[in-house]
Amino acid sequence: MVILGIDPGFALVGWGVVQYERSSFKPILYDSISTPAHTPVEERLEQIYHELSDIIEKTRPDAVAIEELFFNTNITTGIRVAEARGVILLCCRMHGVSIFEYTPSQVKQAVVGYGKAEKKQVIDMVTRILHLPAPPKPDDTADALAIAICHGHSGQSKLASYYNVK
Amino acid sequence: MVILGIDPGFALVGWGVVQYERSSFKPILYDSISTPAHTPVEERLEQIYHELSDIIEKTRPDAVAIEELFFNTNITTGIRVAEARGVILLCCRMHGVSIFEYTPSQVKQAVVGYGKAEKKQVIDMVTRILHLPAPPKPDDTADALAIAICHGHSGQSKLASYYNVK
Repeated sequence: MVILGIDPGFALVGWGVVQYERSSFKPILYDSISTPAHTPVEERLEQIYHELSDIIEKTRPDAVAIEELFFNTNITTGIRVAEARGVILLCCRMHGVSIFEYTPSQVKQAVVGYGKAEKKQVIDMVTRILHLPAPPKPDDTADALAIAICHGHSGQSKLASYYNVK
Repeated sequence: MVILGIDPGFALVGWGVVQYERSSFKPILYDSISTPAHTPVEERLEQIYHELSDIIEKTRPDAVAIEELFFNTNITTGIRVAEARGVILLCCRMHGVSIFEYTPSQVKQAVVGYGKAEKKQVIDMVTRILHLPAPPKPDDTADALAIAICHGHSGQSKLASYYNVK
């Protein structure tokens, strides 16, 4: 199963594609989409749409896992991130890929085993689970890989319960 | 000049197309896009994208005027509205239509002449300016027409200053 994890953002969208087979993860491709400041919002959204389309067409994921949004301090930034997230959801839907949403604490729980883990712990675990030579940069890319891993774990448990039922 | 005004929303997107010539407005087409509850977010976003595409292709606007978002009480609803707004901006951009953003108080100022006007005053003025037989329903559609009128006024002033420069 190929999983595309996405850490939604407006200036920076982290993404990571992993293969998950027999309880083991293998990294396929990971990077980030970076949109230029001082550019009309709609142009930046279009860039996100087109780059994400290319990623989906190139890696053909079976599922997309994306983080749910929570607003913290900066509401204005939050609006732009939500607008970008809408475009990301649309893009996945247009390509017929199933979408799964996870909260930050679900991701931490799945990757570190503790829902309130620090960011550094998450990045360290992602690096180890995927046998990467160094922590993925930027942090948004590491987060995206963590979200993909989270879906692998939850997907496996669904599959297991499916076979148990059968 | 044909202007498409949009009142962004997730469950309900108000829209209205008007023609603006020689300081006078004429209604062309106006309605709302309504997405069903209890349906995956990405399906509702896709519906908004497709219906808005049809409206743009049918009415061929020279400009889109859309309201800026402000978060009030319900942040969760606000996130969904912002996601839908991102899809709306993308759709306009994909169709090559220029986008102009206005704050609610700019719209009220342009339509009623008072930035803190009540919703009812805005709807009454829209009905009068466009010579409609009755106030447009739902209110979201009336708001969208108000946003289109707001752009007509500001667009005219831009055009005037352009000719003055020449």
